[in-house]
Amino acid sequence: MATTGDAAPRRRGRPPDRRSEETLARILRAARDRFSKVGYAQTSMADIAEAAGVTPRAIYHYADSKPRLFALAAEQAYQRFGAEIVARVLTHDDTAARLRGYVDVFRTLYQDDPGIVAFVSRSALDADRVPELSESLPTWVAGVLDVNELVVRDSVERGELAAGVEPAGAVALLEVFGAGLTLLAGGDRGPEYLAMLDALEHLIDGSLFVARPGVDPAQEFH
Amino acid sequence: MATTGDAAPRRRGRPPDRRSEETLARILRAARDRFSKVGYAQTSMADIAEAAGVTPRAIYHYADSKPRLFALAAEQAYQRFGAEIVARVLTHDDTAARLRGYVDVFRTLYQDDPGIVAFVSRSALDADRVPELSESLPTWVAGVLDVNELVVRDSVERGELAAGVEPAGAVALLEVFGAGLTLLAGGDRGPEYLAMLDALEHLIDGSLFVARPGVDPAQEFH
Repeated sequence: MATTGDAAPRRRGRPPDRRSEETLARILRAARDRFSKVGYAQTSMADIAEAAGVTPRAIYHYADSKPRLFALAAEQAYQRFGAEIVARVLTHDDTAARLRGYVDVFRTLYQDDPGIVAFVSRSALDADRVPELSESLPTWVAGVLDVNELVVRDSVERGELAAGVEPAGAVALLEVFGAGLTLLAGGDRGPEYLAMLDALEHLIDGSLFVARPGVDPAQEFH
Repeated sequence: MATTGDAAPRRRGRPPDRRSEETLARILRAARDRFSKVGYAQTSMADIAEAAGVTPRAIYHYADSKPRLFALAAEQAYQRFGAEIVARVLTHDDTAARLRGYVDVFRTLYQDDPGIVAFVSRSALDADRVPELSESLPTWVAGVLDVNELVVRDSVERGELAAGVEPAGAVALLEVFGAGLTLLAGGDRGPEYLAMLDALEHLIDGSLFVARPGVDPAQEFH
């Protein structure tokens, strides 16, 4: 009974798999949005169904519990994030180009869907706090952290990291950026977020500030 | 009945106000820790009392509800943060010195108590999601954001921000740092966190990476 009832009724002119794919995409987008904005604990499957414009039954067709829906949304977000990192960071050899590539990952994903960027950090925070989520994320998060380590290790091997900088500190600095960049993506900032990424690229290149020749700031006001 | 029962019994040799101050400090530290690690919604007053080693009654002496305890913990954390910003950031005139001052704020507070740094971001995330907290934080958070705007405005006026960088983007970049630095403080990283701050100071000074003269990365591997 349940199995035939779960199948969506066929319509002429549109293949059912395409329709199913679109429904799933809408459900996952709504799930990311509600989990990020309201928090996992405060979100119900019914809230997500309403936000996605589908029946709760339609959600259960893809994920039969809230933790599974969370895991599915996280899997999609992290896979997308990971694919962008491979394409835009790891294709470069030198550290500066890789860091610019990171900025590009955020630029591309944010322009496509700010919610997917925001969910990467919010989901990690929720998974940290809610016991039933403890197994949904570790592998994905570890994958991103592995890339940070790889980038710093290669930087050291290529002699590009300045002497006196501890590699573990540089890895943690990449995490600081990851946490900050994903968190701010949740704030509906639009073009300001993209302007921030431009400023970050200047900082990476050492060109965010102008050195004013001939002016000694210590002498100027004192 | 309640009023006399609330007063702590006096002991010889230790003035009661001093004792009360220590109890409050212990309660606020436990509150920050539980709220940060487990989340506001999942934390009860009894949990906090247990973590602080006091009776739930002792907590109600200082804050008669969970939202009020949260507000008290937030007030203390943000006041401490604000005082450090005034002392270490705003005492400088030039932007580079101010940014190094920011790094110093995090260094000082983290060495003193990582939990106070972590609570600054976790509390803002909770306040964003839990309706009963909506009025506990806005003023404090706005104060920190005002400083970011002031630093960038002064930087523009002094001609220190590079041409082509949008001031709003630079302000958001300071927020990215604030969010990332406070979030990572929650991870029990110890010396690695301090090494990360050193790496960040190198990045601000444009000295995180070594330019290798004579080597063209584009030619090296292709």
